[in-house]
Order: sequence, then structure tokens, then C-alpha cells
Amino acid sequence: MIENWELFLFPYNQAAKEWKVKLRGIRDEFQQLDEHSPIEFVTSRIKSIDSIKEKIKRRNIAPDRLTEDMEDICGLRIMCPFLDDIHEVVNILRRRNDIDIVSERDYVNNEKESGYRSYHIIFRYPLQLIDGQRDILVEIQIRTLAMNFWATLEHSLNYKHPNAFPAEVHQRLQAASETAFKLDEEMSKIRNELVKDAEKDQSKGEEK
Amino acid sequence: MIENWELFLFPYNQAAKEWKVKLRGIRDEFQQLDEHSPIEFVTSRIKSIDSIKEKIKRRNIAPDRLTEDMEDICGLRIMCPFLDDIHEVVNILRRRNDIDIVSERDYVNNEKESGYRSYHIIFRYPLQLIDGQRDILVEIQIRTLAMNFWATLEHSLNYKHPNAFPAEVHQRLQAASETAFKLDEEMSKIRNELVKDAEKDQSKGEEK
Amino acid sequence: MIENWELFLFPYNQAAKEWKVKLRGIRDEFQQLDEHSPIEFVTSRIKSIDSIKEKIKRRNIAPDRLTEDMEDICGLRIMCPFLDDIHEVVNILRRRNDIDIVSERDYVNNEKESGYRSYHIIFRYPLQLIDGQRDILVEIQIRTLAMNFWATLEHSLNYKHPNAFPAEVHQRLQAASETAFKLDEEMSKIRNELVKDAEKDQSKGEEK
Amino acid sequence: MIENWELFLFPYNQAAKEWKVKLRGIRDEFQQLDEHSPIEFVTSRIKSIDSIKEKIKRRNIAPDRLTEDMEDICGLRIMCPFLDDIHEVVNILRRRNDIDIVSERDYVNNEKESGYRSYHIIFRYPLQLIDGQRDILVEIQIRTLAMNFWATLEHSLNYKHPNAFPAEVHQRLQAASETAFKLDEEMSKIRNELVKDAEKDQSKGEEK
Repeated sequence: MIENWELFLFPYNQAAKEWKVKLRGIRDEFQQLDEHSPIEFVTSRIKSIDSIKEKIKRRNIAPDRLTEDMEDICGLRIMCPFLDDIHEVVNILRRRNDIDIVSERDYVNNEKESGYRSYHIIFRYPLQLIDGQRDILVEIQIRTLAMNFWATLEHSLNYKHPNAFPAEVHQRLQAASETAFKLDEEMSKIRNELVKDAEKDQSKGEEK
Repeated sequence: MIENWELFLFPYNQAAKEWKVKLRGIRDEFQQLDEHSPIEFVTSRIKSIDSIKEKIKRRNIAPDRLTEDMEDICGLRIMCPFLDDIHEVVNILRRRNDIDIVSERDYVNNEKESGYRSYHIIFRYPLQLIDGQRDILVEIQIRTLAMNFWATLEHSLNYKHPNAFPAEVHQRLQAASETAFKLDEEMSKIRNELVKDAEKDQSKGEEK
Repeated sequence: MIENWELFLFPYNQAAKEWKVKLRGIRDEFQQLDEHSPIEFVTSRIKSIDSIKEKIKRRNIAPDRLTEDMEDICGLRIMCPFLDDIHEVVNILRRRNDIDIVSERDYVNNEKESGYRSYHIIFRYPLQLIDGQRDILVEIQIRTLAMNFWATLEHSLNYKHPNAFPAEVHQRLQAASETAFKLDEEMSKIRNELVKDAEKDQSKGEEK
Repeated sequence: MIENWELFLFPYNQAAKEWKVKLRGIRDEFQQLDEHSPIEFVTSRIKSIDSIKEKIKRRNIAPDRLTEDMEDICGLRIMCPFLDDIHEVVNILRRRNDIDIVSERDYVNNEKESGYRSYHIIFRYPLQLIDGQRDILVEIQIRTLAMNFWATLEHSLNYKHPNAFPAEVHQRLQAASETAFKLDEEMSKIRNELVKDAEKDQSKGEEK
């Protein structure tokens, strides 16, 4: 199998660095324009060697299919303030000329059984290496701050207690996810009402 | 008043850079020890010149009292996964020898009227400049991811609609903050129960 | 002319950030391969607003031609250990698919009158902005550490004494540049001789 | 001996990060003041595990004396434009209240046999860890760009050819170091003459 993991992971590390700068640039551009940024912050992680090995076993991935079949070795995460911001970010990514989107999965409206919510985009990125181009698969997870709160804590609990949660805990985590999602919807409603009020005030002002 | 704002803000910028590295080091140390980190991520901001000027007016601060009376020019923010992590972070900060804590305010248990929750620590930091030492006031806000979700969105709404919110919006924001806090409490409860279960399992294992 | 300079410079700043990560990635890849890296370190700078204005005047550039006629608003600098490394870096850049080289100027072998030596490449980079692609001109200066020593000190002297240097100083700076270049050549010769010696030793070892 | 090297090296890594920010802050402060900065750039490195093990053997260091007897595990390097800048940086470091200088070695005026030149300062830094303070030894090497040119290339040759250099190469490297040092002295002379000329011009202007 892979002999030198550090070397194998180098292109993924490099792609992650380049994309962190690219995605933070989107946020910076909105701020420069003094407009609401749909991106609050960006993080990246490279899948650990242990996790890659475990997934190879679990999914029975052939060694020569690793770079093609494991789509989340290079992972980025975009945190959005509001629910609507997720779609704006997705649209901005779809417009880019430097990637080739492979698949999209909407776990925002179709949450996973655990309660997990996020929008996933996998794309192919033509990374430039010393000896030429190498296409790298990159996964971007887009989620609200509320979804990120839930996913971070659930992951932390999972990490310390790797066995399946007891049924009662499982249900309470699902319920917590549902509550977090309702909070996202409520904050969006408040936002939209404030926008409408502001527009009304403006049109009143213009009538005078 | 201040003639060269860039120069005035330099020490605050430098202190923010130094503290971002120091606080991220706490997270890194926990991760190196393979223990749960009470710090999820750290951000910093320097108060904008406009905000400083506005606050000078509003609070009627004398120019020569600026560095002493405005305590939040250099601001750092620590986001914690769980509610209990806040107190762990506070205790870690209290143990440090490189600062002199000036004041602490517990807006976690005594939320502001708006619904805002965070734990605030203000300390004096002996910054080393070219010509010698200069004591700088630094404010650190410590909050959970759920509190940060609420505070970020409320701030975003406030920024776009600077007038006071209508009473109905105000109440709904308070209610949303309350729901977010209940989510924090629920996640802590789940965590504590999982820990208890794990301890039970372990002692059962030892009994055999 | 330009109304909002910060906004005008945003794409150049973003391109500089992306290229700093890309160029440092070349160095990292060589290090990962445990091979000699032709890149020692990388810096970037955005032309200051004052310098842009001064150059517009001096060269009589039309405002609508600014982005096309001023090629060094976004500047990167690559410092190489050895003289030969410059050509290796140039070749690596020529192989990349993410840029379109506009021009190359060899001030290494054809130094400027001042004594300045560097290899300049100007390329077009398709930057992805929120609203779509925007082609940005980027200038990369490639030089040895010895050339960088001379250029940095000459620039420092120039900055503090903006008038033309006295003829005698001018000549001494030219002579210093020549000495620095001879040092580069001497270090390359030593390196090549050590490589030849090592090859001889190896072939002797193989003969036995 | 050391069981977990990553954990052993953590405080050194953290100290290096904190000091990189502190030293770059000195450069930034000069630039903010629009004064010549005696610091051109700053780098850091943590001694590799292999190098530490090799040095333990070579110097016969007892395991429990490692943190006290190996003074260069955490290393920083400051590159200065001009020769005189080295002393300015040394003086700035001596004035700091956040360190305790253990020793200084002047390899600028007393170069090593190889031709190596730099000014070395070793100090004790009270690093704040989760469980309390830990004093860490830090080594800072201060050198001009010309000295750094020589040291970088000599190190690169050494790395690829780890045996002692042939006597002839050894002498040529010494000579190259001497030439680089003469270049430093010549650039300093030019600088001082330009300063004198500027002062004369000014006093003439004032006489009129």
C-alpha cells in the first residue's frame, strides 16, 4: 500500500492551504464591499492516516482507487451566519472556473439519521505540482453556526465514547439538532422581517 | 486628540497578535496531550477608529484617560464547545504569570438585557516595545459555540439595522438566546451522563 | 480616477495571498521529497497607492489602462540559494497550467545600470471573484540570496536618500553588485566540484 | 529517555511561535514609525529529533540535563540589512523585561573556523503552560543578509556532502565568507557617507 504517507498527503495538504486562502478571500471581498458576508469563518483538516486506513478497511477500497474513491481526504468547512447564506455560498462556488464540481449532497434539508446537517460539495481541483498538474478531490462542508455548534459537540461526544450512543441519548441529540435548526429558521425570519420593515420605512420616507 | 491613529493602535495590534498565538497554544497543548480541549477556536479584533471615537463621545472619556478607561480596544474571543469549558478556560487564565487580571464579569449566568451571554476578563499585559515596557489592557470574551451563534447573528442584525429593535423583535431575540442556552445545558447533561455511563461500565469491568 | 483605492487593490491583495501559498508549496514539495529546494523563501508586496500614483504620472498612464499597463501592482519575490536555482524556478513556473506568461526579462545576465540583478516574469492569473473571473497581472522577481542582499540594501539607501546617488557612490554600488555576483558564481563552482567529487567517489566505489 | 518526542517538543514549538510574533513586532513597530528597521525578516526552527539524538550522543548529555544543557532546541534567526543593525537588535533584546539572558557569543567579530558569522543570544523564557510556568531556553542568531547568504549556502553544501570538506574547498569557503563580510563593511561605509552628505546639505541649507 502507501509507503510514505507524508508524501502521499502532501498534495492534499497543499490543496487545503490554497483553498483556505481562496475561501477566506470570498469573505474578505464581501467585507471590502461593506456587504453582509455569507461566510463567517473557514477551517480545514486533512484526514488522519488512521482514519484513512480505517475507511479503506470499512469500505474495502482498492489501494489504486484510493485517490478516486476517498473523496474527503482534503476537507474544508465554511461556517455561515444565516440559513440563506448556505445557498449563496453554493452559488458562488458553482460560478468558479477553477474547479469541476463532482457531486453535491444536501444534508441541510435532508439531515442524516444522527441529526447531522450540512451542505456537501465535492469537486476536482487541478493542483499544480513541480512535475505538472494533479487533479485532487476536495470536499467542502457548508453549514450554519448553529449546525456547526451541534456537529462539533456531537463529534466531541462521539470521539470520547466511540461506541454507538444509547437509544435515549441518540434521540436527545436528534432533538437538540432539531431545536438548533428551528433557531436558524427563527433568526432568518427575524432578519427578513427587519429587512421588510426597513423597506417600508424607506418607501414611506419617499412618499412624503 | 490622537493625531496618528495607526501609531496609537500599533501596541493593541501587537498585543492581539501575541495573545492569539498564546491562546491557540492552550488548545494545541490539550490536543497534544490527546485531551478534550476547552477551546474550540480563537479570534481577535481591534476596535475600529470610528467605534473608539463614538465611545469617547458617548462615555465622555478624557483623551489622556483613553488607554486606561477604554478596556476593549484590544479584544480576543475564545469559543468553547461545552458550558463547563468556560470555567476551565477562566481558571487557566487566572493561573498565568504573564498577566494581571483587572476585572471579571459573568454575563453567562447574568445575561445582559439583550440576551447576550459571555464571560469577560480584562487584564493588564506588559507588552515589550522598542523603547521599553508598555502595559496594555486586553479584554477576553469567553463563550460557548451556541452563545457565539446568537451573538454573531444579533450583531449582524444590529449592524444592518442600527436603530433599536422593535419590542417584538427584542423579545424574540431574548427567547432565541434562552433557547440557545437551554441547548448548551442539554448538551452538557448528555455529556455528563455519557461520562457516568462510561465510569459505570469501567467499574463493572473491574468488578469481574 | 480610482475612487476607492482599497477596493481597487482588493484583487491584487487576494492574488498575492494565493500566490504566496502556491510558491511556498513548491519549496515544501522539494523538502517533502528530501531534495534541494531551489526556493529559499518567498515574499510579497502590493504597490503602495503613492507609488502607483507617482508611476501613473511618470509614465503618463491612462486611468482605463491602469490594470493593463501597470504590471507590478501585485509583486512576489522568490529568493534562491544558488545561481542555477533561478533557472529551475523559471522552468517550474513555465510548466504551470494556472497562468499565462506575458513576458520574461533576464536582469540576471543583463543587469540594470544600477547593478540590479533579478529574473522577472509577468503573467496573467485568472482570479476568481464573487461575480466571476478577473484576469490579474502578477510580477514575480526571482533572485539569489546574494542579489537580494544587494537589492535590499540599495533600496534602503535609495529610500532614505531619494535623490540620485553621487557618481562615486553609484560606482561603488555597481562594484558591490559585481562582487556579490562573483560570490554567487564562486559558490556555484564549489557546489559543482563537490558534486563531481562525490560522483567520482561513487564510481570508484563501484569499480572495486 | 524521552518517550513521546512530540510532547517533549511542544513547549519549544509554542515558544518559537510566540517569539516569531514578538520579533516580527519589532520590525513592524519601526515600519509604523517610518524608521529604518534593523530587522529585515525573522525565521524559526525547532531542532529535529534526529539532530537532538545525535547531539546527545556527541556531547554525552544526560537525559535529565537535556532541557538545561541543549540550548538550541528552540531557535530563532533575525536577518539585518546592515552590519550596525546587529548591535541595535542586541540592545533592543537586552532591554526586554520578558526574558533573562543567559549568554551572548559574538561570532560576528570572532568568526568560527569555518567562516561562520552571527551574533548568538541564549535566554530563558518563562512560557505559560496549562499547568503553570515552564522556563524554556531559546537561542536567537542575529546576522546580516550577507552572512545569511553565506551560512545558508554553506549549510546546503554540508547537508548534501556531510563529510568534512576537502582543504581547498574549506579555504575557498573561508575566503567567500571574508568577501561577504567586506561587502557588509563597504555597504555600511556607503551608508555612513550618504548620511554625512545629507547632514552637510542640511546645515548648508540652514546657513543660507
